[in-house]
Amino acid sequence: MKINQSFSFVVIFLFLTFSCKKENASETNTKSELSTSQEHPKLILTAQGVKDIRAQLGNIPIFDKSLQAVKEEVDVEIEAGIDVPVPKDYSGGYTHSRHKKNWFVLQKAGLLYQILDDEKYAKYVKDMLMQYEALYKTLPLHPKTRSYARGKLFWQCLNDSNWLVYVSQAYDCVYNYLTEEERHKLETNLFKPFADHISVDSPQFYQRVHNHSTWGNAAVGMIGLVMDDEELINRALYGIKDLKLDATKKDDDGGYLNKDGKAGFLANIEEPFSPDGYYNEGPYYQRYAMYPFLIFAEGLHNVKPELNIFDYKEGVLLKSINALLNLSDADGDFFPLNDGQKGMSYYNGALVTAVDISYHFGDQDPGLLSIAKQQDKVLLDDSGLAVALGIKNGKEKPFDKKSINLSDGPEGKQGGVGILRNQDLELVFKYASQGSSHGHYDKLSYSLYENGEEIIQDYGLARFVNIEQKGGGNYLKENKTWAKQTIAHNTVTQNETSHYNGKYEIGSQNHPDLHYFSTDNDKVQVVSSEVKNTYPGTEMLRTMAIIKDEDFEKPFLLDIMKVTSASANQYDFPYYYFGQVLQTNFEYKSPEILKPLGTKNGYQHLYVEGVAKANKDNSKFSWLNNNKFYSLTTVTDNNDEILFTRIGANDPEFNLRRDPSLLLRRKNSKNTLFVTTIESHGNYSPVTESALNSKSNISSVKVLLDTKLYTAIEITTINDKTKIFITANTNALKEVKHALTINGKNYEWSGSYYFK
Amino acid sequence: MKINQSFSFVVIFLFLTFSCKKENASETNTKSELSTSQEHPKLILTAQGVKDIRAQLGNIPIFDKSLQAVKEEVDVEIEAGIDVPVPKDYSGGYTHSRHKKNWFVLQKAGLLYQILDDEKYAKYVKDMLMQYEALYKTLPLHPKTRSYARGKLFWQCLNDSNWLVYVSQAYDCVYNYLTEEERHKLETNLFKPFADHISVDSPQFYQRVHNHSTWGNAAVGMIGLVMDDEELINRALYGIKDLKLDATKKDDDGGYLNKDGKAGFLANIEEPFSPDGYYNEGPYYQRYAMYPFLIFAEGLHNVKPELNIFDYKEGVLLKSINALLNLSDADGDFFPLNDGQKGMSYYNGALVTAVDISYHFGDQDPGLLSIAKQQDKVLLDDSGLAVALGIKNGKEKPFDKKSINLSDGPEGKQGGVGILRNQDLELVFKYASQGSSHGHYDKLSYSLYENGEEIIQDYGLARFVNIEQKGGGNYLKENKTWAKQTIAHNTVTQNETSHYNGKYEIGSQNHPDLHYFSTDNDKVQVVSSEVKNTYPGTEMLRTMAIIKDEDFEKPFLLDIMKVTSASANQYDFPYYYFGQVLQTNFEYKSPEILKPLGTKNGYQHLYVEGVAKANKDNSKFSWLNNNKFYSLTTVTDNNDEILFTRIGANDPEFNLRRDPSLLLRRKNSKNTLFVTTIESHGNYSPVTESALNSKSNISSVKVLLDTKLYTAIEITTINDKTKIFITANTNALKEVKHALTINGKNYEWSGSYYFK
Repeated sequence: MKINQSFSFVVIFLFLTFSCKKENASETNTKSELSTSQEHPKLILTAQGVKDIRAQLGNIPIFDKSLQAVKEEVDVEIEAGIDVPVPKDYSGGYTHSRHKKNWFVLQKAGLLYQILDDEKYAKYVKDMLMQYEALYKTLPLHPKTRSYARGKLFWQCLNDSNWLVYVSQAYDCVYNYLTEEERHKLETNLFKPFADHISVDSPQFYQRVHNHSTWGNAAVGMIGLVMDDEELINRALYGIKDLKLDATKKDDDGGYLNKDGKAGFLANIEEPFSPDGYYNEGPYYQRYAMYPFLIFAEGLHNVKPELNIFDYKEGVLLKSINALLNLSDADGDFFPLNDGQKGMSYYNGALVTAVDISYHFGDQDPGLLSIAKQQDKVLLDDSGLAVALGIKNGKEKPFDKKSINLSDGPEGKQGGVGILRNQDLELVFKYASQGSSHGHYDKLSYSLYENGEEIIQDYGLARFVNIEQKGGGNYLKENKTWAKQTIAHNTVTQNETSHYNGKYEIGSQNHPDLHYFSTDNDKVQVVSSEVKNTYPGTEMLRTMAIIKDEDFEKPFLLDIMKVTSASANQYDFPYYYFGQVLQTNFEYKSPEILKPLGTKNGYQHLYVEGVAKANKDNSKFSWLNNNKFYSLTTVTDNNDEILFTRIGANDPEFNLRRDPSLLLRRKNSKNTLFVTTIESHGNYSPVTESALNSKSNISSVKVLLDTKLYTAIEITTINDKTKIFITANTNALKEVKHALTINGKNYEWSGSYYFK
Repeated sequence: MKINQSFSFVVIFLFLTFSCKKENASETNTKSELSTSQEHPKLILTAQGVKDIRAQLGNIPIFDKSLQAVKEEVDVEIEAGIDVPVPKDYSGGYTHSRHKKNWFVLQKAGLLYQILDDEKYAKYVKDMLMQYEALYKTLPLHPKTRSYARGKLFWQCLNDSNWLVYVSQAYDCVYNYLTEEERHKLETNLFKPFADHISVDSPQFYQRVHNHSTWGNAAVGMIGLVMDDEELINRALYGIKDLKLDATKKDDDGGYLNKDGKAGFLANIEEPFSPDGYYNEGPYYQRYAMYPFLIFAEGLHNVKPELNIFDYKEGVLLKSINALLNLSDADGDFFPLNDGQKGMSYYNGALVTAVDISYHFGDQDPGLLSIAKQQDKVLLDDSGLAVALGIKNGKEKPFDKKSINLSDGPEGKQGGVGILRNQDLELVFKYASQGSSHGHYDKLSYSLYENGEEIIQDYGLARFVNIEQKGGGNYLKENKTWAKQTIAHNTVTQNETSHYNGKYEIGSQNHPDLHYFSTDNDKVQVVSSEVKNTYPGTEMLRTMAIIKDEDFEKPFLLDIMKVTSASANQYDFPYYYFGQVLQTNFEYKSPEILKPLGTKNGYQHLYVEGVAKANKDNSKFSWLNNNKFYSLTTVTDNNDEILFTRIGANDPEFNLRRDPSLLLRRKNSKNTLFVTTIESHGNYSPVTESALNSKSNISSVKVLLDTKLYTAIEITTINDKTKIFITANTNALKEVKHALTINGKNYEWSGSYYFK
């Protein structure tokens, strides 16, 4: 009863919030009166959309091309015949792949039936759905037992939900083609029990705030919209009625199943998205979760326009698309924050959906058209038509990725991700919250890119998604033992222990806070964040700047990590570079035998390939990667150690990449400061064999001052030009005036930092 | 006196040989009567060429573009002012780079003066030449002492020669602009002593058959042609008169300085090129040597047409260009045989020269125009004009690289390189001779490419050419301790010792022999070669086939290595794959601590990352690289060991790449057979996360028969189709008929192999 009340409250709240959008809403309402409930298709493709598309066909190149590709694909499948095998395999295995293929083909065949008005596609959909009907009613739980929530067609409910999200669309497209009797048969024996299995029968999967649940909610909601089943629609929006789960239970990934009782599609929008549209698990999972969010939202917009779903939480769904596009590098690859597989990009189908929907239901940003053009594909529905017409009419403009700060947390108060961009350089500074069960213990870590290539990498996940030979395509154990650990990231590890002691319970209750983000001056862009509880008694404040200065060939990175601690600790600070060691200004020894650096918390996976005593003042390291030169200059003293490490120890199945790092180790320190510059400079051509500007432009980096209030750094170039950067460590508000004397020289400025 | 006589003999021989080309020659003679000796330019750009070019300017896009680029480059240099610093540095250092830049700019400014008829370029050339004149006469030997033949402007005579090859062209272009007095000054104080220093004063550099000497010969000859100095021209063509060097001396690379007394440009064409145009050091050095061969040949053709230089040795210079282009992968990168730096490609400037000259002075192959178009640049001379006109007139056709066998040795009798191509697959099988001082001890080794990407790599050299931070940009010591050693290559190492005991003296006296090369049937292409003396008492016969069969998705490799030995040995057989281990069908153990595999002959550089006992029958290994799947299936028994290794042990300066290999080890065997298939199959998309055809198509590989006469292999697919490949081990002539019964089944065929 209690839960029920809160549902009512949410509904009332929705009406109140959106009443200000009345004009829009009433307009849409008018449409919906004409088109919904009776008429099909209505869910994604609409009856009006079908009319418009048919009128333009042959005259909208990118749409025509997308249609042709889909037609060819589906024709091949129709030719090959229907196969609905008895479920047997994990991801990557035959039955898994076949059912997955079927859901895509069904959805596409449905679209083709509507757009091309060719019955063969409707018949194909009907015939396959009937085979699913015949199979489904005989199915027990899937025979593979690894999942916390087993499906019936697939080993996990998640994939069953994927299936239903797509197949709902197919059913909508052939709805009117089917007889009432056929519909009754499908709804009674297939769709309704299918929706029940992934929801009421699998609450541990369904009744959560989690990307899995979003798929479940969308699946149940979309079939509900097609079937006009209010119970399913409400279950989708608000979760399973009258159900309260054990708040202490955990899933396979170590996340709580349902700690605070929230569930349903709206809660799933509410919780993981920050007001800026950042999704708390990071872009890789956002991309995955995006599709059900948007496709169900589109369905709700079309069938239940009174919900004004695209205005929900101040339009966060459309904002999230913009955030996601900004979380990609120059090639469109998403930054692999948390558990993210490298190579996933905005060329993914979910992003075609996202871009088209954002364009159509948002404010027709012409930048989106340039991405759609790169994707070279549009949805075969109303939004795809809008994009195709936009491109055809030459409205396209470049999608200009700028520096951006994205807050994290439902209210934007749990840290965030700051991205600094200058020319080809991109700094991705992660000061976000734990990121749900897919989060890594990497507070204040970063990665650095140049023109889409990694300079300093984030490892990403330890998994080969859908490659059956590697642990069934699922998370490998090294994801926990390596990829999530702090030492796997470009941040400080204290006493060889991960942040929050590697414990999800602690991690999810804490987060860094933004100190300042300043990009008004595009020559000096700075992001600064502090975190308190990664280690008891230790505080870290990290300030990272991308500086474009006339005395440098390219922008360079200045990194200031200020550690304050009550106790003496060992701090390890790795730099996961790529490529070939060129030169160091310190002497190092390479052991003949390689041993692991430690025994746990990720250290067991690092081999030590070189050991050095750091230099007094500065230690410098240069390397070559992808025919570009890089130099790192860091403030050290004689007590610091520098290690060359390589990933791969205690990795008996070669699950990890054998990537190198340079690791700066400072022992027995309480308060300390790490100051480092990283330059990209020059290039090498293997064709002309010429090495241009192959040396660092920095002759020294020096700490002029480091107090509770300020940290001042002096950078001297090889031509003896000096640059001073001062960051305000406490009061960094824009309007604050600072005055400071260092070595007899006065510095006065307003705002967060000084640079000259 | 003896040497002098042999010179005369060569000259007479030339006249005899080329008299059959009279028509051509007399035509050119007519031209030369008009244009040579008196008129300048005459060397590369000709007076007639200048007229033709000026007439077409603005109407020949690729030429106009090339001209514009050169003009912009030179204008920047003129603006910046002349700098002729006192020589000081090794390669990569400032004075080296500056003088190198100067030679290019001088040559280009000369061309611009002629083509644009703008005196500012002539003045610039004159001014800089005068500065060189002033400097050169004061110069002692270059202060850096590492070279066996120190230059004056550069640390080695080689670079001094490079300078003169280019600057001769500049001098020719401004010849008529200068007063006689100016010319006298330059010739007396700069060019003549310069030519003498790199020849008579540095015979250990000049008087050899070696790519260094070719540069020296060309330099002396080209300035001789411009100055009309017969003594220099003869010294260029035939070497230093009356000079005999100590035949036992060696250079820095371990090659003999001059073992057989041959020298001069003609001898340098004679010796290193096979009749097929293969250059004995391999494509990387051919590319480097190419420029002086071709540019001096062009000069000789223009000024001394009676030599018919392009017909010399049955037109081997132009043939060699075709060979070189065929020694590149799908991206145009040269195969890194012997000491070759990866990434060198036909985009190199020397290849612009080669392609343009080959087109103009050869038979106007339209395939060359497509490469010129990719190069997007032509020479600013008569040949560049011809190419530009060809492209403009739409004559271009694709340059179709097919399977090709290139013999090695002056008479084509010292082994060779066989390249098998089918669809995207390229096998580079090296059965060449030692390859001079840049050769590797890698008889019967190979590398495998797919669409320009390495599947099984050849390591190449251990050097970072012109990157000063790495050993001054010169060969690193790991080139000898690793890159040249047999274990660094994809062939058999016996008893942990390199071929020919790693001794150049033995290696250069031996070579493998072609057994057969068969590409008539493009579905089954085979190359087979045997070698006798890599180890005393051991013979190896390797037969490699690229097979395209209807039961396979793509062509696959079948590799049969037959070893015959009088003694029991250990054989090591590595596969230098790239990427991530996916699966093995054998159990392996990974040591927690990594130790080197051995102590010498390259073994000291390999870490052991995994150890397995091989399977009975077949051992299978699958990996993922660049989103493609690969599987290796090899015939083994329980006594075989399989090791996972990684390069990088005893490499204290990180000079080597940390690349992996799978190493098959067979102990205590006399005669033995290694049979392996390598398949490329399917692909992985990180965007759709789908793994297509990720598993091997081969269920077993079996040796049906292995005798002195025949080796028969049965390959069975996972769908139980069997394929039989039989190779004739002794008599493999095309016309020979074979009949054979294996397990009661009769096989009859004609020719080298059977496949069905």
